[in-house]
Amino acid sequence: MMKAIVVIADGMGDWPLKQLNGKTPVEAADTPNLDWLAKHGICGIMDPLAPGVPPGSDVAHLSILGYNAKRVYSGRGALEAIGFGIDVVPGDVVFRCNFATVDEDMKVIDRRAGRISTKDATELAKSLEKIYLHNHPEAQITFKNTVQHRAILRLRGPGLSMMVSDSDPHAVGRKVLKVHPLERTSEAEKTAKIVNEVLKEFHEVLKSHPLNEERKKKGLLPANIVLCRGAGVLPIINPFPLKFGIRAAAVAVMPLVRGVCKVAGMRLLSAPGATGGYDTDVLAKAKAAVKSLETEDFILIHVKATDLASHDGKIDKKIEMIEKIDKMIGFLIENVNLEETYIAVTADHTTSSVTGRHTGDPVPVAIVGPYVRVDDVEKYSERSCAKGGLGRIRGRDLMHTIANWLGKMRKFGA
Amino acid sequence: MMKAIVVIADGMGDWPLKQLNGKTPVEAADTPNLDWLAKHGICGIMDPLAPGVPPGSDVAHLSILGYNAKRVYSGRGALEAIGFGIDVVPGDVVFRCNFATVDEDMKVIDRRAGRISTKDATELAKSLEKIYLHNHPEAQITFKNTVQHRAILRLRGPGLSMMVSDSDPHAVGRKVLKVHPLERTSEAEKTAKIVNEVLKEFHEVLKSHPLNEERKKKGLLPANIVLCRGAGVLPIINPFPLKFGIRAAAVAVMPLVRGVCKVAGMRLLSAPGATGGYDTDVLAKAKAAVKSLETEDFILIHVKATDLASHDGKIDKKIEMIEKIDKMIGFLIENVNLEETYIAVTADHTTSSVTGRHTGDPVPVAIVGPYVRVDDVEKYSERSCAKGGLGRIRGRDLMHTIANWLGKMRKFGA
Repeated sequence: MMKAIVVIADGMGDWPLKQLNGKTPVEAADTPNLDWLAKHGICGIMDPLAPGVPPGSDVAHLSILGYNAKRVYSGRGALEAIGFGIDVVPGDVVFRCNFATVDEDMKVIDRRAGRISTKDATELAKSLEKIYLHNHPEAQITFKNTVQHRAILRLRGPGLSMMVSDSDPHAVGRKVLKVHPLERTSEAEKTAKIVNEVLKEFHEVLKSHPLNEERKKKGLLPANIVLCRGAGVLPIINPFPLKFGIRAAAVAVMPLVRGVCKVAGMRLLSAPGATGGYDTDVLAKAKAAVKSLETEDFILIHVKATDLASHDGKIDKKIEMIEKIDKMIGFLIENVNLEETYIAVTADHTTSSVTGRHTGDPVPVAIVGPYVRVDDVEKYSERSCAKGGLGRIRGRDLMHTIANWLGKMRKFGA
Repeated sequence: MMKAIVVIADGMGDWPLKQLNGKTPVEAADTPNLDWLAKHGICGIMDPLAPGVPPGSDVAHLSILGYNAKRVYSGRGALEAIGFGIDVVPGDVVFRCNFATVDEDMKVIDRRAGRISTKDATELAKSLEKIYLHNHPEAQITFKNTVQHRAILRLRGPGLSMMVSDSDPHAVGRKVLKVHPLERTSEAEKTAKIVNEVLKEFHEVLKSHPLNEERKKKGLLPANIVLCRGAGVLPIINPFPLKFGIRAAAVAVMPLVRGVCKVAGMRLLSAPGATGGYDTDVLAKAKAAVKSLETEDFILIHVKATDLASHDGKIDKKIEMIEKIDKMIGFLIENVNLEETYIAVTADHTTSSVTGRHTGDPVPVAIVGPYVRVDDVEKYSERSCAKGGLGRIRGRDLMHTIANWLGKMRKFGA
């Protein structure tokens, strides 16, 4: 049977940049292997969701995996929790949280509490384990920190809803928000009340926590509040291996992407040295992918750092990461049997190095494999791929196109 | 903040014409500025609604403004009335009307009563103000003429419906039609009855009107009937400035387009000398647009006469108008700061100079601006733009793409 590897370089698409004489980072980077892919494959551009619509990485990955993201997406919280290995069952409402620093007026000084260390965050999180709401004894509250300032708040109990707002004001200098219901249901109203009480209790514990006193003495920002955002529930989706009849695995470090892949029923592979940062060992990812092709039919490889670089406006870093990914592609080309394997390389969205934000511009795609209709594109980039044989497709189309070549798309009609 | 101007040349797209040695009017016209736009921008072709579907100008404009036209469109009548400054409130049913000429068998001799002057039409309209239906005392009837033969009939009262047919047979030599309900509801049935009674009363008044006797003596056609078409109600749409967070204005003369823009919450700008006809002062439009860029973020400029020329089968006039529009584009390029402004030029539909009708062919699009991914298209036309980096998009995609560059598209997902 045919197999496939899809490489997703997070936020790799970009705008033409003055600093690069009007080139995009992909165009400016030296990418012999991506270009080889373009030359020997079929190219196109892809709107992860729809033209002009900026997608989150979670939504974009759902879409690229062939799901109707608009229909199945149910918030960030649950996906990220699952990606961290925190179990989520139907009915749970889960928030992505940050340890943060506020002043006495509850105005945010730092949304990441000075990028608090995981060690300190773990100690603080322990003190939040015992929270019990006397008004809502039926609500089970679970709070777990993950990496640095990041944490998850999981509510479990009857009659909860994800239709509640964020307490995170998403900007420094603004006051922490009250969580409010986003629809007029008793579930949403109850959930908002519970979250507000939990966060108030957390704040009470944190503001007088001895570790925070110590941090202040050391000149560090106290992590005196927990901000929550992105309420989510377990999405109900047809597992990928069932949907397409394909054994599938993913090499990803980012909890959000791991969560999407896990919810989609994919096996999560480990790649020692893959960090999700600039120092990530992309070859380790490629090796893990090639090895698991022995038992799997489909591998998704996700690389985060291209997106990080754009968010930080570090154009050189972005180019460096693209060149690193290019080497990874080189390894795949060398080590995969292209007579029976399709390799696609794309991005989950464009991240503008000008604005540092996800944008709704399309991303490039190139696919090599035994039966693709090779076009005459010779370079891999946003602009050259636009002239390719795939034309302009949407996120969902990519998986359908690949599954089709794997003989796994069901005929509709007679 | 970035700003944008979208120029819509009504019905500018066309078919290749024998009279132009197989060129389209856009291809045959001398358009250095449109070509400059194509060369320094990103190009594509656009289906205002969907491939093959001929759109009305109202629907096409709704779509280009980013609305789901299929969902929000609620007939021509209300939009045109609003464009004329006639107020329409929810519940009103509004028809576009023509003063026309019929013979004694009620067969249409002229659908525009010999293009009756506005002066004569105003006098006739006055005599129709006092109509009162004894069977339907609750129905308020308002009739207002606008320009030449054109008029608006507005019904106000409880239990009305837009689901009624036209009395206008849309062709000379055919009998005036009875208005009938288009669905089996008491509202549609009642509305059809009311309209039929109103039009009968109008006919009674008009056929013996002294002005019509005078017109006959002068050898002019009598305006002895009112034909109605395009029943519509106020569409319920999210105002453009709210939808995108963009202050927006429009330079348009055509009441239908003005109505769409007004309903979308856009400010209507006046441009002295802009007429909606061949003699329109397009530079006045461009000047009004450039001036209002000081306070607005988004300007729509609509030019009607390209469409007129195609409806009339006047190929030379169409080319002349395209060249006039080209000079307007030249003015925009010269007078707008392209470091912070996007300019897009497109059409709302193709109007075939062969059939004189709107067709479902795509139209060309070119967009310049600071961060577009410039492609290698060098000429502005239906065919050359088809090779551009935008590929083939839909009407709604255009506004989403532009709003994305203005940083105004909301991210979906995390």
